[in-house]
Amino acid sequence: MVVAGAKVEPQPANDFSPALDALLEVLGNKVVMSRAVREQHANITTYLPNEPADAVVFAECTEDVQATLAVCRAHGMPVIPYGTGTSLEGHVNAPRGGVCLDLSRMNRILAIHADDLDCIIEPGVTRKRLNEDLRDQGLFFPIDPGADASLGGMVSTRASGTNAVRYGTMKDNVFALKVVLPNGELITTSRRSRKTSAGYDLTRLFIGAEGTLGVITEITLKLYGIPEAITAGVCPFPTIGDACNAVIATIQSGIPVARIELLDEMQVRASNAYAKLGLPETPHLFLEFHGTAMGAREQAERFAEIAADNSGGPFTWAEQPEDRTRLWQARHDAYWSVLPLKPGAKAVATDVCVPLSRLADCVMETKRDIEEMGLLAPIVGHVGDGNFHTTLMVDVDDPADMAKAKLFMSRMVDRALAMDGTCTGEHGVGQGKMKYLAAEHGEATLEAMRTLKRAFDPQNIMNPGKIVAV
Amino acid sequence: MVVAGAKVEPQPANDFSPALDALLEVLGNKVVMSRAVREQHANITTYLPNEPADAVVFAECTEDVQATLAVCRAHGMPVIPYGTGTSLEGHVNAPRGGVCLDLSRMNRILAIHADDLDCIIEPGVTRKRLNEDLRDQGLFFPIDPGADASLGGMVSTRASGTNAVRYGTMKDNVFALKVVLPNGELITTSRRSRKTSAGYDLTRLFIGAEGTLGVITEITLKLYGIPEAITAGVCPFPTIGDACNAVIATIQSGIPVARIELLDEMQVRASNAYAKLGLPETPHLFLEFHGTAMGAREQAERFAEIAADNSGGPFTWAEQPEDRTRLWQARHDAYWSVLPLKPGAKAVATDVCVPLSRLADCVMETKRDIEEMGLLAPIVGHVGDGNFHTTLMVDVDDPADMAKAKLFMSRMVDRALAMDGTCTGEHGVGQGKMKYLAAEHGEATLEAMRTLKRAFDPQNIMNPGKIVAV
Repeated sequence: MVVAGAKVEPQPANDFSPALDALLEVLGNKVVMSRAVREQHANITTYLPNEPADAVVFAECTEDVQATLAVCRAHGMPVIPYGTGTSLEGHVNAPRGGVCLDLSRMNRILAIHADDLDCIIEPGVTRKRLNEDLRDQGLFFPIDPGADASLGGMVSTRASGTNAVRYGTMKDNVFALKVVLPNGELITTSRRSRKTSAGYDLTRLFIGAEGTLGVITEITLKLYGIPEAITAGVCPFPTIGDACNAVIATIQSGIPVARIELLDEMQVRASNAYAKLGLPETPHLFLEFHGTAMGAREQAERFAEIAADNSGGPFTWAEQPEDRTRLWQARHDAYWSVLPLKPGAKAVATDVCVPLSRLADCVMETKRDIEEMGLLAPIVGHVGDGNFHTTLMVDVDDPADMAKAKLFMSRMVDRALAMDGTCTGEHGVGQGKMKYLAAEHGEATLEAMRTLKRAFDPQNIMNPGKIVAV
Repeated sequence: MVVAGAKVEPQPANDFSPALDALLEVLGNKVVMSRAVREQHANITTYLPNEPADAVVFAECTEDVQATLAVCRAHGMPVIPYGTGTSLEGHVNAPRGGVCLDLSRMNRILAIHADDLDCIIEPGVTRKRLNEDLRDQGLFFPIDPGADASLGGMVSTRASGTNAVRYGTMKDNVFALKVVLPNGELITTSRRSRKTSAGYDLTRLFIGAEGTLGVITEITLKLYGIPEAITAGVCPFPTIGDACNAVIATIQSGIPVARIELLDEMQVRASNAYAKLGLPETPHLFLEFHGTAMGAREQAERFAEIAADNSGGPFTWAEQPEDRTRLWQARHDAYWSVLPLKPGAKAVATDVCVPLSRLADCVMETKRDIEEMGLLAPIVGHVGDGNFHTTLMVDVDDPADMAKAKLFMSRMVDRALAMDGTCTGEHGVGQGKMKYLAAEHGEATLEAMRTLKRAFDPQNIMNPGKIVAV
């Protein structure tokens, strides 16, 4: 594993010694500088080199965040906000050194307003913990990116996941944020009302900003009542194309499906082995329907008809909670399940998203590319949104293997862009996808993004080297 | 009617003569300078003074927009984007003179992608025209602010209206925008995929920006299939409080109601007279449910139970399309229906939005205030979102009447803010609500909004004197 640290930029590694001394003075034992902790807080989820910060600050309150930023401002030292480190594109790397600001100790649930279907939390709360706390009030927060990510991180990467087809992404489920700006000011982006037209949408400005514009210290989330009935099931298809066409027809027909996930035959094989699912090894859709008992059943029945029209089926119900849990656990474990496919290799996940009408083409062309390039890469996807992932099994220490993987990923992005899609539906830009933004957005749009970045962070201390990397 | 024109700011009215000459040279007979046209293009919907621009440009294409901005940039002349002029807070006034940029001739529907449930349109397309064009493909665009507004204007004010409780507001239904920035660059904010995490959310930056950051020239909208079944109906309640409590219970129970509109007894009386509805003159909810035939009926039946639990009912169905149309026409005509209540008076509409749990309190206290102040002001509201309106009948030429109306409106905003609500749920800030933003957001947040404005429009030529008015 390459440890680049501060060496990427032409500045001596000890540039920040006075800044780190100041940090220790202000934050004492909340500052940790051991190599192990620093490396564990840099990118550990992809092929990208691990670039640790010079120190990790474990913030416990907003004042700690402000104190950290004050030191960073005074010394021009980078600060990289950190939740659980489960992002996939090197978002938490420190290519220019500086401070990793770990917010996991800011994990209080400050208020649950059951009557208003909202809650106020600190950014370090993870989605599983939140849903455990909500359950006895009959409420849940639907956004589910798979990993037990922190909500602050989910806001910052505009996360979505399996439920997004029905409940939207993070951008649709945050009412307000408290954010410490690079200048030290603590702002509140909005009120707790469900709608507002009172000025610029600062909330959405910070959702997906990947910590490059400020540090989120409080989040007001939209909640939902746990549906009266939840019906889940699986449905095999002879080909990926048939499965995709069934997805398109389902969405077009207005069935409010809560989850509609594609697993290609290679993923089904891996999940069968890992989770003992016993499914026929052909492409599958995993589905979930929410509603009244009657409504959820009606949705499932309509889907089954659509599946049959597209050569799929039979749709097999999993109405018992434990069967449902096993199913979605298997889906969430897709990442782990593929590791035995190529022992010693690392799983490199990448995602694109295209308009629904191009989904079947994009998935099938990608699959052909996988085969023609001799790669091992199961496909899974939140296909109701046109969003899918490949999980490349790569020997990251083998330059030839890595070069082939990188070529494949850039071809996958080119393909999605040519279909009016995006280089990332939900993983974010981080470091890994910066190179695609010019092709996706054009120079004028990138310059508008840089304008935003410069306006809020003129010193370029907030997670520098990510997104537009001014 | 007071015509303030360019006199509001200490600059001679003819400051812009060279600029206007340049405009005429470049845009020829697309430039109109008659007083009648200029006044008709300034604020005509509220108590605010009519402040006409110095000229109106009827843009026919993006190049016209860019040419207008080039002249305005060269001469530091304000430019005020204009759709249909139906906004309610003086958004289209020209307090510093300049050019009104009328986009109504940019009204082409560029593409309808039925398979992807999206379309691409120019900003001058109005919502009724769009829905007429979509209908034969079984599609519709749900956002419905009442007026037949242009989609460009609806984007710019972050419009919502009666369907927002189910389908969200404009922020939830735009995939991408093309925008001419003040610097003349044409940017595309996003791709046509249903999700993306590829950088800052420029789309949401321009939604609700009220034309202060750029001129929208193209919009990619999210569409929906026309529901298989639409069920509508009305339900009387003995008190406003009972009606609000039924709304709260309906939302909390997760019924995906498509419309849930409150009319107080005064509005019901006015609508009875105007639209011959024949309803008992007590507070009413007007409702609509979308779904399968079975699903829509189930929703309506569940609502009827909730209504009965809150002393309301009976719920009366309007299942025939013509009955439904009559009902919603009456709701949309609320504004016109109140005019006969006080002959010679003008209807001044204002809105606030509060968390659902405070809706009943806020509406009832507002109603008490109306009575105690001796005002005539029916209440209507998109109450599923906690959003409601008062329609004040005011003699705008009577200073005492106006003073009382202004006091009432500021008390209504104070009340909403004290309940963690917003000074406007959907009308926007314009000129009328600027004075409330400091109380709502705090100075640090306002300064962040000003930072945005300065970054994108350093010359302050885009609709100056609105929102944060740098």
